Amino acid sequence: MKLASLKHGRDGRLVVVSRDLARAVPASGIAPTLQLALDDWDNIAPQLEELAVELEAGTADGSFAFDPTRCTAPLPRAFQWADGSAYVNHVALVRKARGAELPDSCWHDPLMYQGGSDGFLGPCDPVSLADEAWGLDFEAEIAVVTDDVPQGVDDREAAAAIRLVMLVNDLSLRNLIPDELAKGFGFFQSKPASAFSPVAVTPDELGDAWDGRKLCLPLLSHLNGVLFGKPEAGEDMTFDFPRLVMHAAKTRTLAAGTIVGSGTVSNRDSDGGPGRPVAEGGLGYSCIAEQRVVEALTHGEARTPFLTAGDRVTIEMLDGDGHTIFGAINQEIARIGRKSP
Amino acid sequence: MKLASLKHGRDGRLVVVSRDLARAVPASGIAPTLQLALDDWDNIAPQLEELAVELEAGTADGSFAFDPTRCTAPLPRAFQWADGSAYVNHVALVRKARGAELPDSCWHDPLMYQGGSDGFLGPCDPVSLADEAWGLDFEAEIAVVTDDVPQGVDDREAAAAIRLVMLVNDLSLRNLIPDELAKGFGFFQSKPASAFSPVAVTPDELGDAWDGRKLCLPLLSHLNGVLFGKPEAGEDMTFDFPRLVMHAAKTRTLAAGTIVGSGTVSNRDSDGGPGRPVAEGGLGYSCIAEQRVVEALTHGEARTPFLTAGDRVTIEMLDGDGHTIFGAINQEIARIGRKSP
Repeated sequence: MKLASLKHGRDGRLVVVSRDLARAVPASGIAPTLQLALDDWDNIAPQLEELAVELEAGTADGSFAFDPTRCTAPLPRAFQWADGSAYVNHVALVRKARGAELPDSCWHDPLMYQGGSDGFLGPCDPVSLADEAWGLDFEAEIAVVTDDVPQGVDDREAAAAIRLVMLVNDLSLRNLIPDELAKGFGFFQSKPASAFSPVAVTPDELGDAWDGRKLCLPLLSHLNGVLFGKPEAGEDMTFDFPRLVMHAAKTRTLAAGTIVGSGTVSNRDSDGGPGRPVAEGGLGYSCIAEQRVVEALTHGEARTPFLTAGDRVTIEMLDGDGHTIFGAINQEIARIGRKSP
Repeated sequence: MKLASLKHGRDGRLVVVSRDLARAVPASGIAPTLQLALDDWDNIAPQLEELAVELEAGTADGSFAFDPTRCTAPLPRAFQWADGSAYVNHVALVRKARGAELPDSCWHDPLMYQGGSDGFLGPCDPVSLADEAWGLDFEAEIAVVTDDVPQGVDDREAAAAIRLVMLVNDLSLRNLIPDELAKGFGFFQSKPASAFSPVAVTPDELGDAWDGRKLCLPLLSHLNGVLFGKPEAGEDMTFDFPRLVMHAAKTRTLAAGTIVGSGTVSNRDSDGGPGRPVAEGGLGYSCIAEQRVVEALTHGEARTPFLTAGDRVTIEMLDGDGHTIFGAINQEIARIGRKSP
């Protein structure tokens, strides 16, 4: 089934969405918000599934045309956002860009940071940029939402705890990252609020595209209407979702509604190199930083600027028939402060 | 006024507590949970204040004896836990212990990490320790809870957004920290769930002890009944709370109910050095790691072991008359897994 949250108060209002994203029906009578549904999933999910069946059959009372611009993030605020960096190729490239070391441990021990989760952006919300000099970048990722996860779970339990899958735009302020990470405490100011796809989807709804551990389809990013990246999310994922959940739960429990992210989806080229831009026949990238590194390696300088006011980013995934699965993240950059000199 | 959450479901049940912590009264009729009160503070707080006045006057209906062992954290789960490290002396000492550099920026740019907030421990909850080799330590801190904070607030607005003050035991797994921080993404596995004091207190309730920017009283930590530290929380706080809130809000808004922590409270000695243990006439420390560093410097080796099953930590703050302000964090260490060989 597919779930979304319409803008309403701080936690949105839960709706069930049809498979083709054309129709939706209020689920408030079952659970007013997605967090409340996740808090009691075993009891609530079957009722939501029943409503989803009625919606597909055209017999659901009160259904209406689904409009992604009315959506918040599926979880408008969450109690935990744990973002991995499972496509180690991305980490290697971005670190190369800022001349930082990639410890060998990155290939066998997942990188993960604790993200801010007190207020996410809706899929079509503008991105406020207070200072262009901060170097705003998008990062296209996949995320799962878990049920309660006990401390120290094994692989099988971690896989079984995955309740929902969605897409993320994990916005980053690239020019704030080097100084912030140098202080040793990880990201804080360099990671403003992330945005999520209109719809969160149960794994069973994904069919063969979900192999129980990862999502095996291209992740499409467009910048100002031009295809920027189409890497295969099922390839080069060094740590799959159950592995990321196990990592997050090694020393503590995870509460229902915990969001675990994949990190920026990134493929190596067939020769093992960093992959080519779309314009050169490659699969492109899920963030500007990677393209800039490749430009610097190829041309001696980065050519693609970071995001600025008026730019538009879309992030989407299509099924085998070309239909959007999660709806599109579709955001314009709105400057609220200083313009770079 | 003083507020607490009794154990009930995932978010507790809000109660107003008397100034002397002897009595409490359910506030469910006003706001079922503290998060819901913070979500609409301007409307809810005056009603809670009225109930607090009735409780002090002995006229509140349904009041009962307050029992801290029935409490969860004031916010049993929160949407954001942003922990600063405002007592830079602590950072300098702990980094010295692991041979890590302290960048000069630490003295003029606050250190802050994004903590996990999906499930906190109650003040009297045991601490589960899965593996003694992880090096469990306590860290006694002060934290504030904010209202909604716009991005880019100034100092005055940041100070005005502080709604509540409480104490924290920011538990740390010391032996996991060096490898985790070396990966560059900050703390994750090395910070299990923090515990909070039974009661959260509005700044006006603190009188002269709250100067609008910090709490000016000794923070008392006991280990197995023996005084371990009594540093002055109002001294050596390089970055006060408004400054920490401004730092957290530089690039993004903070949602109501955001918890901002001071980091481990730590004083320098009168000679500017790292401070002496209580047993040697000093003010002692708010975590074991600091005492171990000083032992290593003095005796050539750390002598105080990290926490193990059966140990008990208490963290408390007394007013000028010797009365507990927030109630005591009082936790026993319970081993659930491997004992160190």
